Amino acid sequence: MLYYFFEYLDRELNITGAGVFHYISFRAGMATLFSLLIGAIYGRRLINILKDFQIKEKSRELGLPGEELKQGTPTMGGLIIIASIVIPTLLFARLDNVYIILLLLSTVWLGLIGFLDDYTKLLKKKENWLVGDRGIRGRYKIFGQIILGLIVGLTLYFNENVVVRQYQNAQTGIYESVASTDAVSYRDVKASTSTVPFLKNNELDYSYFADFGAIDLTWLLYVLIVIFIVTAVSNGVNITDGLDGLAGGTSAIVSITLAILAYVSGNLVFSNYLNIMYIPNSGEMVIFCTALTGACIGFLWYNSYPAQIFMGDTGSLTLGGVIAVLAFSIRKEMLIPILCGVFLVENLSVIIQVSYFKYTKRKYGEGRRIFKMSPLHHHYQKLGYHEAKIVSRFWIVGIMLAILTLATLKLR
Amino acid sequence: MLYYFFEYLDRELNITGAGVFHYISFRAGMATLFSLLIGAIYGRRLINILKDFQIKEKSRELGLPGEELKQGTPTMGGLIIIASIVIPTLLFARLDNVYIILLLLSTVWLGLIGFLDDYTKLLKKKENWLVGDRGIRGRYKIFGQIILGLIVGLTLYFNENVVVRQYQNAQTGIYESVASTDAVSYRDVKASTSTVPFLKNNELDYSYFADFGAIDLTWLLYVLIVIFIVTAVSNGVNITDGLDGLAGGTSAIVSITLAILAYVSGNLVFSNYLNIMYIPNSGEMVIFCTALTGACIGFLWYNSYPAQIFMGDTGSLTLGGVIAVLAFSIRKEMLIPILCGVFLVENLSVIIQVSYFKYTKRKYGEGRRIFKMSPLHHHYQKLGYHEAKIVSRFWIVGIMLAILTLATLKLR
Repeated sequence: MLYYFFEYLDRELNITGAGVFHYISFRAGMATLFSLLIGAIYGRRLINILKDFQIKEKSRELGLPGEELKQGTPTMGGLIIIASIVIPTLLFARLDNVYIILLLLSTVWLGLIGFLDDYTKLLKKKENWLVGDRGIRGRYKIFGQIILGLIVGLTLYFNENVVVRQYQNAQTGIYESVASTDAVSYRDVKASTSTVPFLKNNELDYSYFADFGAIDLTWLLYVLIVIFIVTAVSNGVNITDGLDGLAGGTSAIVSITLAILAYVSGNLVFSNYLNIMYIPNSGEMVIFCTALTGACIGFLWYNSYPAQIFMGDTGSLTLGGVIAVLAFSIRKEMLIPILCGVFLVENLSVIIQVSYFKYTKRKYGEGRRIFKMSPLHHHYQKLGYHEAKIVSRFWIVGIMLAILTLATLKLR
Repeated sequence: MLYYFFEYLDRELNITGAGVFHYISFRAGMATLFSLLIGAIYGRRLINILKDFQIKEKSRELGLPGEELKQGTPTMGGLIIIASIVIPTLLFARLDNVYIILLLLSTVWLGLIGFLDDYTKLLKKKENWLVGDRGIRGRYKIFGQIILGLIVGLTLYFNENVVVRQYQNAQTGIYESVASTDAVSYRDVKASTSTVPFLKNNELDYSYFADFGAIDLTWLLYVLIVIFIVTAVSNGVNITDGLDGLAGGTSAIVSITLAILAYVSGNLVFSNYLNIMYIPNSGEMVIFCTALTGACIGFLWYNSYPAQIFMGDTGSLTLGGVIAVLAFSIRKEMLIPILCGVFLVENLSVIIQVSYFKYTKRKYGEGRRIFKMSPLHHHYQKLGYHEAKIVSRFWIVGIMLAILTLATLKLR
C-alpha cells in the first residue's frame, strides 16, 4: 500500500527520495527487514498468548532423545509466519499485480486449512464429518489443497496479465523468448512454456503434450500438474517439519533462491544478460519472496534449537504451498526437484519406508524397514546424531541444492 | 588454473561448452560447490588426524554450561577452511589478477600466523622470545598483521592494475565514476576513492584529508587505515570465535554479501544499472568470495553445535583478515561497521568490559562489570540462553546487517 502513497508523493508532489519506492531492490530490502522484525518482536507475544490459552501440542512419543523437553512447547507458530509474509507484502508490493494477489490468496488459504487442523487437534474436538482423531480429516485437507491448485492453475493459464515476452529475430522473423542482439521487435504473449534446466534449447511448451489440434487440452494438463505439485510440496514441508528449525531454515534457503530467480526474470537488463525468459510484472514477486525469507528467518529466532514454538500445519502447509505457487509463477517449476530436494527426499523416505513395510509384510508375514525411522531426519536421530547437528547439515545440503539450481541458469 | 585450460580449449580447439568458463557466475558456482565438498569430505579426515596427534585444545574453565563436553575437541580446524578457500580459488579464478594474488597471499599469511599460534599453544613449548604462555606473544601476532596490512595497503594504492572506471560527462566534460546516459568516453584511473553509504554523492576521496599540495600523504593515510582495519577485523573474528558455529556462520553471511558487492562492482551492466563504481578486474574476486563462503559453510558441517572441531586462530585470524582485504579491494571499507557489526560489537563488549573494570577499580577500589562476562556471547550464556540459540540469533542479526549493507546500494 505504501507503494501507491510514495508513488503519489513522487509523481504529484515531486518529493525528493520518494522515487526510491519504484526500485524493487529497495522495497525487497524493506520487506525483509519488516518481516524479520515482525517475527522477532511479535513472536515472543504470540508464544505468551498461546501458552496462556494452553494451546500446546502433545508430541507423540517416538522414543527420541530430547523428546520430553518438547512437551509444552506451543504450536501454531505458523500464525506469526503468515503475518510476517502478508503484512510486508501488503505494505511494499503493488497490489494490482496478478501474481501478488494469487500469492496472498494462497498464503491465507493454506494458512486457514493449517490453522483449522492445528486448532481442532489441540481442542481435541469430538469426531465429526470434518474432524478426525488427529485434526481435520486427511481427505478434506487434500480437497482444500486441490481447490487452491485449481484456482492457481486456471489463473496462471488464462489470466491475460500472465505473459512472457518474445522477441522477433531479424533474420528468421520468428518470435523467440531470448532476445538475439539483432531483435527488431517484441510482443508479450500468453504461452504455456516453462524453463527446463540444463538444456541448451531451454524451454518446454506444455501444449506439445496436450494440444491435439481439434481439441486443446493443454489447460487441463497444466492445471493437473499445478495441483499435483502444490499438494506435493505442501505436504513435503509438512513432513520435513519435525526438528527444531528444520522446515523454517530449509524454506528460507528455498525462498531466497526464488527471490533471485524472480528478480532476474522480471528485470529486462538482467534477463537479457543471463539469456532467460523475461516475464513482465514478475519482479513484484521479489517483494513476496523476500518477505517469505524474512518470515522464515525471523521465525527461527524462536524456533531454532532449542525451540520455544513450533510452526504447526499452519506454517508448514502454507510455506510448501506458496513455494510451489512461486515456482509456477516464474515458470521454473522444473527446478523444484532440485531446489526442494530436501522436501522431496523427506517425502520419499516416508513413501519408501511405508511401501517396503507393506510389501515385506505381505511377502514375508512381517513388515521390514529400510530406515530406522521415517521421515529421514528421525532416522539420523535414531543413529545418535544430535538434533541441532542434523538440522544444520540439512540446511547445508539445502544450500548446495540452491547453488545447483542457480547454476542451471548458466549451464545451458 | 582450470580457467586457462578451458580458455585454451575454447579459443584454440573451439570445443563446445568450454566457453562457460568465461562466466564468473559459473566459476563462482563451481568454487562454492568445491569448497563445500572439501570442507564436508576432508573435514572428517582432518578431525581424525588431529585427534591422533592428540592436538586438542584445553579450554579454559569459565564456569559455562556444556563446557566439559568441549574438552578433547580438536582445534586448528582452520586448516580445512584455508584449504577450501585456496584450492577452489587456484582452480577457478584467474591467477594473473592482482586482487586474487593479494587475497591468496593474505589467506596463507594469516593462516600461518594463526597456525603458529595454535601449534605452540598445544605443544606447550617453553617460553622464549617468540612464544609466551598462551601461544606466540601478542606483539608478534600484531606485528605479522601490520606487515600484511602494509603489503595490502601499498599494493592497492600503487599497483597500476588497481583502478576505477570514470566516465566523461558530455555536458560538463568532467570525469565521474557513475556513467550518465550521455557519457561520451571513459578512462580507467588510479584513484583514492571509496564508497560512502547513504550519501547521494556517494564517494570519499582519501586525498581530501591528506593531499597538502606540496606533499601528498594520501598513501600514508590509506596504508594506516588498511593496517588498522585489517588488524581490527582479524581480531574481531578471533574474539567472536567462542561458541560452536558462531564465527563460521557469521563469516559466511559476511562473505556472501561481499560476493554480491564484488559481482556488481565488477560487472559493467550491473554497476551501471545500480549506479555504483565500476572496478575493472574486480569480478574475479567473486570466485574468492564464494570459495570463502563455501569454506565457512562447509566447515559448519562439523563445527555447528555440537562441534566436533574448532577453527582456532588458524581459522579466525584468516577469516577476519581476508574479509577486511576484500572490503578494501572493492572499495567498500566504509560498510565494514555495518556488515561486520557482529564482530564489532563483540570487540566493543571486551573493550567496554575491560575499560570499565579498570576505571571502577581505580575509582572505587573494586572492579565492576557491565556484562556478566565478555565477549558478549558469554554474557548471554551466563544469562541462561542455550549455546545453539545464541548462535542462531547472532546469525540472524548478521543477516539483518547484511541486508542493511546491500540496501545502502539503493539508499543514495
